[in-house]
Parts: sequence; structure tokens; C-alpha cells
Amino acid sequence: MFNSPPHSPPPFDRRLPAEAWAWVDGHVCTLSPERVPVTDAASRVLAAAICAGSDVPARPLAADDGYALCAAATAGAGAYNPLPLRVPELDVATDPNAAVLPGDARPVVWGQPLPPGADAVLPFDDAEPSADGIEVYAAVASGEQASRVGDECVVGDIVLHPGRPLRPQDLGMLRLLGIAKADVVRSPRVGLVSSRTEAHDVDGDMLRALIARDGGTVVFRGFADSDRKQLGELLAADDLDLMLCVGGTGLGINDHASSVLAELGRIDIRGVAIGPGDTLTLGGIGTTPVCLLPGPPLACFSAYELVVGRLVRRLAGRNPDWPHAVCEATLARKIASPLGTLQLCRVRLRKGLAEPLDLAGGRLLRSAVDADGFVLVPLHCEGYPEGEQVQIFLF
Amino acid sequence: MFNSPPHSPPPFDRRLPAEAWAWVDGHVCTLSPERVPVTDAASRVLAAAICAGSDVPARPLAADDGYALCAAATAGAGAYNPLPLRVPELDVATDPNAAVLPGDARPVVWGQPLPPGADAVLPFDDAEPSADGIEVYAAVASGEQASRVGDECVVGDIVLHPGRPLRPQDLGMLRLLGIAKADVVRSPRVGLVSSRTEAHDVDGDMLRALIARDGGTVVFRGFADSDRKQLGELLAADDLDLMLCVGGTGLGINDHASSVLAELGRIDIRGVAIGPGDTLTLGGIGTTPVCLLPGPPLACFSAYELVVGRLVRRLAGRNPDWPHAVCEATLARKIASPLGTLQLCRVRLRKGLAEPLDLAGGRLLRSAVDADGFVLVPLHCEGYPEGEQVQIFLF
Repeated sequence: MFNSPPHSPPPFDRRLPAEAWAWVDGHVCTLSPERVPVTDAASRVLAAAICAGSDVPARPLAADDGYALCAAATAGAGAYNPLPLRVPELDVATDPNAAVLPGDARPVVWGQPLPPGADAVLPFDDAEPSADGIEVYAAVASGEQASRVGDECVVGDIVLHPGRPLRPQDLGMLRLLGIAKADVVRSPRVGLVSSRTEAHDVDGDMLRALIARDGGTVVFRGFADSDRKQLGELLAADDLDLMLCVGGTGLGINDHASSVLAELGRIDIRGVAIGPGDTLTLGGIGTTPVCLLPGPPLACFSAYELVVGRLVRRLAGRNPDWPHAVCEATLARKIASPLGTLQLCRVRLRKGLAEPLDLAGGRLLRSAVDADGFVLVPLHCEGYPEGEQVQIFLF
Repeated sequence: MFNSPPHSPPPFDRRLPAEAWAWVDGHVCTLSPERVPVTDAASRVLAAAICAGSDVPARPLAADDGYALCAAATAGAGAYNPLPLRVPELDVATDPNAAVLPGDARPVVWGQPLPPGADAVLPFDDAEPSADGIEVYAAVASGEQASRVGDECVVGDIVLHPGRPLRPQDLGMLRLLGIAKADVVRSPRVGLVSSRTEAHDVDGDMLRALIARDGGTVVFRGFADSDRKQLGELLAADDLDLMLCVGGTGLGINDHASSVLAELGRIDIRGVAIGPGDTLTLGGIGTTPVCLLPGPPLACFSAYELVVGRLVRRLAGRNPDWPHAVCEATLARKIASPLGTLQLCRVRLRKGLAEPLDLAGGRLLRSAVDADGFVLVPLHCEGYPEGEQVQIFLF
């Protein structure tokens, strides 16, 4: 019989998107932590709560640059009533704990311990040097420009919760707590195999960028142009957290990806009711989840956005939901969508209106390039009429 | 006279935020381009328009896997009316341009040229192999599953405009156009000098992450603990696009940053009416812009977000406006703000309400860590009452 190679690709059995998401949620969980320097921890997901081990600050500190002094000594000072204070010369390095007497002032900079006897800091701006000290032109209240013990946090405070992607200010806070290394979720290592050179040229860089956005790192495994044995060798790797194979997922005589996966491991889901990208196939080899993505670029993009990205984000400890910012807009034209398929419809925003870009049968990558985001049309829906208010996931 | 070092810091002359932004816009422009592989171009800013040099595709292609055929030959085919087609065995490698005859079909995969005589692709799913070919179970129209010449773009099309941060699908598009390297804006090299070790510990990693967010790369120059000569050597560098110095911007006897800057170059703006962070000082040494940032962490953070970030984004060719997503919310409590200062007020979002976190005089980094974003209170405004609808810039 024609067209019956020794290993035919298994037929498709399209499953609901919700089944694919449940498969993702059931097959992967957040990776184990690794310890990294705070300097390298930006945007990484915190693996364990950061709990203050002591009060911060541990003693009263100057909160700004100025003169440490006893606030009461400035009472009544003003632009028309300068008050004189002494500024005894002092080698602070040899006597850091020397007290500030009530009529004295001592220059300090932000972050220095407030000397004993001082309860506030007068900004340099509010004083003028004089022959034997300063003239004070403004009164300060006790505690002004001073940090009290525990102002930032007290011992036992949970300052940062696990699961949080670390923001720039969080790194500063870790440093304030005296923490130089943090436990963060390991970045998923995602193997990428291309069943065909053409597919890799277009899809490889796109997937690499999508995976980086979701917190993963691509390990390119190689091409396997129509070579079953080589494809099997590339797909089998026990040092990766996820394996992706692009192209060759279909039913053609050179489409070996699914039959090789069935032979070396298992296929759990063969096709998903998403559009574009419905040949997406999910399974595993050993304990490593494997996703076979379609080769046509828009289908590959859509299958990643609708299913595979969730898997990468789960491994990375991120929120598994779509990472896109959302907005609402009114449809400039109707969207038609096949019933029974979750459809990723590209739209361009123009003057507050969302214009669908479903060109040439909806298969052009150009539509995703020209679009500002996408509208999801659910399974049970044939689309939306012109003028409908829709939610847009922004690229 | 006491407290009069040989080089006193120049006094403050607080300028309006709009003057600081105008200074930024007048002193820097987008850096020159560099050519990078498309693989490394994700999120980089495109420096020149990408114009299609030829039609893509250049000839009709299969847009999916299936049987290339003459669509007319499938007319009338259906589940109850299968039509037979021949599938002549053919070594396509030796005769890639052999025509498909009207009663014939030929297996193709996505991206392959459509053979002469074929005008559509029948998905593998819609046919069954038979003794001498296939039985066709569905009709296809001319052009189905086929890409026409120029479907993605025609010669001369501007496919991507300069100034665009490249998205994952854009990288795929560049590959479809046969482009392996792209001209992108060079990433700004931002020198970072710390006038004190304490300041660097807390502020250095925070600034590094903020600068990376805005497309720049930090080159750490070193510490200059109260050493004027060393500070001068660290600040002077002619291979950087921007120099930042953290701490020592004030009026204290050890605050050398501003007097060193005045000596080696020039101070253009000494203090900006922003809060926190009003000691921010802007100037230059030679052609390199220099910013002196306050050392207290929240003031440093705020001065970066309100002024310095704009400078980094301009150099990087990005949109100079705030890069944060915005949302609207109702204030859970009033915000009080000093008149005459653009104030960055940290707020936490809880159940749709924005709760101000202006703790301990508004100087704690913790408030930026606990916050979900910030509200900007303009110069001429003393704050907002409880219940006011405000715009929030999300962290």
C-alpha cells in the first residue's frame, strides 16, 4: 500500500484546551530552588519567604545628610531667629560613640548611626557655618530625618513572599537586610529540536524569545531532517526540564515526530482544539514532558501562546496565566471563528478600535507582526459582531 | 572657619521636573546602531526600517502539510462520495518541478513550493490511502492551504518600522524575509560610581535592575570613599554613554560628588523639585552626561524613576515616557503632598482600592517593596482626597 511507512504517525484526537491546560498543571510543578547573588536575581522568582532576622535598622540612623543634634535645642529657630550650636571637631573614627551634647551638632550622612544624645538630623540646607559652629535657621522635631529601630522591618516580619518575581526595589531591600544571595526558582532548561531546517530558521528564534519572556532558557539540540533515528536521539535527554520539537507533527510520510515520541515514550494528547496550531501534541519521554509544535510559524506561535507557555511559566514558578497586559476595546469589524476551536485572533488597535487582522485564511505570521495583541474567541462561540466590547491581550 | 573644605559643594537651586526632562531630551539622543544576529535581537530596538527586498513567499507554497493537487479534481468529494486520485511515486529530489496532473496528488509539507499544476493542498486528514493512491473525502477550493506569491509581504513593503522593540514574532518575520542579522540601537553603557560603600550595597543592584529594564547595561566603576581624587578618576571615562554617581550629592563635608563634577566638567541642574530624591544633580564631563543620585535608597529609586530612567530610555531608542503599565483605582485614604514638588507616592492595591504607603515620613524603601505601583502628585497639587480616582503606574 502506498504511503504506509513502517511507523505511521498516530491519527489526531483533538482534545479541549481545558484538557491540555489540566495536563500541563498535572505534569509539571515549580522547579527546585538555586542560590544566586542578589546582583543576578532581578526578575527571578523568589523560592522561599524572606523573613527579617533582626530589626532594620538595628539602631537609630540618620535618614538624610545633615547635622545630628538634640531636636529640643532647635526650638524657636527660624529665618529671623538663627540659633547658634557648637560643632566640636572630633575624630569620629576613634570615638564613634561619643555623645552629642544638647548644645552641639555633628555632621552625619545618610545611613550613619545617630550618635547618642541626638534624636534628629537637621538638613545642611537649614544651617550656615559660623566662626565656632553653625547658625540654625529652622526647628526640627524629635525623630525628623532619623530612622527608628525597626522602621523598615522588625525581626520576624515576612518582607517578601515566595513566588514573587523580584523587582529592582526588592533587590535593594534584600541588601538592607544584609542578604547577598537569594534562593530563586531554577530557570527551566528547554530543549529545542527541529524536525526540519526550514522550520527552525523561522520558528527557532521566535520560540527562544517567547521562552525567555516566560523565564526559561533554550538549549538547542539540533536538526533531524527526516531522520527517525537522529530525531529519537535528539528528543531523548535526561538533563532538561522540557523538550520541544518543532515541525513534523502532522500526518505526512516524513512526519516522524509523533511516531518517534510514541515509540520512545508516550503521547497523552494528540491535537488540541486551538486555532491556529491544532496539531499540538503533548506527551513525555521518561519524566521529561515533550511538546510537538506545528512548523508553520503562526501555528507554532499560537500553540506556544495558548498551551506551551503555561508549561514554561509553571516550571519557572511564575503565574501560569497569560503574562500579557490586557485592555478593552470595541471591534471595528466582526470576528468570525470556527465553532469548537479556541481561536487566537490578532487585532490591531487604531483610535481605540480593535481591527481584526485575519488575513489570507488567518495563517500569516505577518498578522501577528502587524497586530498589537489578540482576542481569544472561546470554543462555543462563532465570533463577535462589529461594535462588540472585547478583551485584548497585548503583545 | 569651621566646615569650609577647599571645595565646598555648590548650593542647591531646585529646578522644575519639566526643566530636568527638557535637559534630558536636549542632552541625549538615540545611540548609533549595531548589527546583531536575529537570535540575539529579542527586545532590542530596531534602528532602521525593514523593507521587503522581494515578495514573500517568492512562489506559491504549501501553507500546511497535505496533498498538493488541482482543486477542481476534488469537486463534489465528500464523506459519502470519496473521489480517487493517483499518487505517482516520484523522486522529487531529481525532478522538483515535475507537474501535478489534474487527477494526481503529491504529498507536501508546509513551506514547500507548490508543484506546477497544483493550486491547493488537501490536508492529510481529508484523505485515506488506497491501493494506487488516495480516496479524497472533502473538496478544497483553489488556494486553500496554499500561500500565494506576496501573501506575507510584497517587494518594497515596510514590514517593521525603526524604533520598534523587537517581539518574538518579529524575529520569525525577519527569518521569513531571509534576514539573519539586524541593525538595532546599541545598548547604553552606563557607568556606576558609588561615593560610599554603604550606598552601593543597597542602591547598586537596584539601579542595575532598573537600567536593565530600560535597555541599558551597567559598568561598575568602583567606590570612592570620601576620596576626591579617586572620585574624579572614576567619574571621568570616555567610553561610556552615561555616568551615574550614587551618594555624596548633598552638602556635607564628605559630599564631594557635586564639587568634583563642577571641577572636572559642569553642573547644569543642581536639585530637582521631586520627592523623594530632590538632591538629584545633572551635568556632564566632556560629552558624557553625568547624574548624581542621592544615596538614601528610596530617594535614589525615585530620582531614577522620575528623571534618570528617561535618559537611559532615550539613549536606548525606547519610548522615553514611563514604561510602567497604568491602571485606575480609587484612593482608600487621602494622599498629602508638599506643594511645589512632584511626588512619587507608593500605593498598594487591595480590592480595587489604592492604599497610600507613605510610612515614616515617606522615606522607607519598604514602602516601594510593599507597593504595587505609584501615583504621581503634580507640583501645583497638595494631594488627593480619599475616594479620588487616580492613575497608578504599576511596578
